[in-house]
Amino acid sequence: MTQPTDIPAYSNRPTNRRVLLARRPQGVPQAADFSLDEAAIPEPGLGEFLVRNIYLSVDPAQRGWASAEANYSQPVPIGTPMRGLAVGAVVRSNDPAVAEGEFLYGWFGWQDYAVADSRRIVTRARAAVPLSAYAGLLGINGLTAYLGLIELGRPVRGDTLLVSTAAGSVGSFVGQIGKLLGCRTIGLTGDDAKVARCRERFGYDEAFNYKTADLAQALADSAPGGLNVYFDNTGGSILDTALRHMAVGGRIVQCGTASNQVWTPPPTGPRNEREILTRRLVWSGFVIFDYVARFEEAGRQLAKWRSEGRLAYDEDISDGIEHAPGAIAELYAGKNRGEEANLRRVTPA
Amino acid sequence: MTQPTDIPAYSNRPTNRRVLLARRPQGVPQAADFSLDEAAIPEPGLGEFLVRNIYLSVDPAQRGWASAEANYSQPVPIGTPMRGLAVGAVVRSNDPAVAEGEFLYGWFGWQDYAVADSRRIVTRARAAVPLSAYAGLLGINGLTAYLGLIELGRPVRGDTLLVSTAAGSVGSFVGQIGKLLGCRTIGLTGDDAKVARCRERFGYDEAFNYKTADLAQALADSAPGGLNVYFDNTGGSILDTALRHMAVGGRIVQCGTASNQVWTPPPTGPRNEREILTRRLVWSGFVIFDYVARFEEAGRQLAKWRSEGRLAYDEDISDGIEHAPGAIAELYAGKNRGEEANLRRVTPA
Repeated sequence: MTQPTDIPAYSNRPTNRRVLLARRPQGVPQAADFSLDEAAIPEPGLGEFLVRNIYLSVDPAQRGWASAEANYSQPVPIGTPMRGLAVGAVVRSNDPAVAEGEFLYGWFGWQDYAVADSRRIVTRARAAVPLSAYAGLLGINGLTAYLGLIELGRPVRGDTLLVSTAAGSVGSFVGQIGKLLGCRTIGLTGDDAKVARCRERFGYDEAFNYKTADLAQALADSAPGGLNVYFDNTGGSILDTALRHMAVGGRIVQCGTASNQVWTPPPTGPRNEREILTRRLVWSGFVIFDYVARFEEAGRQLAKWRSEGRLAYDEDISDGIEHAPGAIAELYAGKNRGEEANLRRVTPA
Repeated sequence: MTQPTDIPAYSNRPTNRRVLLARRPQGVPQAADFSLDEAAIPEPGLGEFLVRNIYLSVDPAQRGWASAEANYSQPVPIGTPMRGLAVGAVVRSNDPAVAEGEFLYGWFGWQDYAVADSRRIVTRARAAVPLSAYAGLLGINGLTAYLGLIELGRPVRGDTLLVSTAAGSVGSFVGQIGKLLGCRTIGLTGDDAKVARCRERFGYDEAFNYKTADLAQALADSAPGGLNVYFDNTGGSILDTALRHMAVGGRIVQCGTASNQVWTPPPTGPRNEREILTRRLVWSGFVIFDYVARFEEAGRQLAKWRSEGRLAYDEDISDGIEHAPGAIAELYAGKNRGEEANLRRVTPA
């Protein structure tokens, strides 16, 4: 079994620093919604193990997990460590199937240490890729892009694929995977630097700044035959416009709804059922955790493409757990450092 | 090959009376949107045949065909016979594959006679069922119910199925087919007599008058585990409420949008993408003419259920082509004679 290519140094701290959800956020969680505390390192029980986190993943989905609104998971309780995926090393194990020294990607939360059992493991870091990639390309970002596109978008060679948040942690992979599968790709993003990055770094055939372009005209011009697949991370008015440019039989993958932050009560918009009907669209909701059984296979394909140099990505890694509380808000504001990274991590150390 | 069980007398008139679309309807076509004229009986050319219509089908989809709005078919040109399905007898044929005396269901329009070629045939009336059933159970109403439910609704035994316009020409079959496939069925309709009919005639487990019931409460009470399939013929606020009672992984079949008559500009409503995402719904648009290759197989299954006495329906047949112009409006107003028939026809004679 091959090992990660970049195992970073990690120290075993004497206490467990934890990023707690201090209050229920209104919309996107802000730094002030969290507090930092320091607790004793927990003891793994029988069948459990202790993980020392090395990379804390910062994901758009964390907005939903912190929210009290209807969702696909229970809200993170106030006063507990923020729910999050992380890459960590097993430092003690009372589970014979989990070895000390093994590197895992899983539900270890925003803290230095986590006690977990095997149900919390998402994948084991065994391929020859950098360890940090497990909370990125081979984590839920890459898996979401691959499985959402393949399973619900069902692209075929020659299809035209539209992607919103096209330079983001999921969208940047959707565009590249679509291209690898023979699609014509159109990316939408919210600033001109990212538009350039879509074209130059992620290989989109076309890219537009939805804030300044006439989106309806841009879609009419760049997809005269209509859109076959729309991978949507935003919802809202971009979705309404895209719907009206779908080809007959087109597929819409609803992967995120980043354009709107509060859903109670739901905002209003143009009714879309007539478009669904007359264009015979298939509009599906995607949540990555429904596809756990496919992670191994998807990860192998992504690792293969990566090793062949066919998937571009850049990581923003901030050192210090004190950077975690503000990281979700920065992600939504598109303010990754240098305006460049499509994947964001925090190392607790 | 068996023959229809009730071949009615039909006379060969000396002229061709035609129901012309006189002007572009605003919303649901009204009697005044049509005019009646009388023309010479057309001559079939090489490879064509002449059909004498016996039953003119009256279908909700005709609203869309008469409309100038974006749709899945070209608008019926003003001054031409209204597009419509009909059952007729071949009275002359220059097509060796179509025999004189044969009964056909197809695109023969609202008129006494039609010249057609084989591309206009939907099905040939060859099973031991009443001829009028070809413009009903075995026509696009029954085929839509069967194929829309099976292909896009994908019901499995034990599912809870909600149907809007539950006593209508499509909905009444959806409810019954769902029941035959082992679903729990809930019907929505707009008056109390039809609610009773849903329960007593079409076997729904539950039925509600959406105009007087508290729909959200009724769905919460009657489907505590959520709706697995929603077969929607209405759109609008019923759809919005149903969406918020779907089970995770539920399927919505968008078959009609009867609750709203004008779509330019589109009316507004609560945004639904968050529901699609968090409930992982699959919302698909259904147009029967995408499934022509399945008509034979679907018709066989429907004829089998009918011959076993497992599908109930009642027909409203008005004698006289002068009843056609007002028939679509009556259909939308739910005013079939006696408030009972779920299938409506006009015989030109």
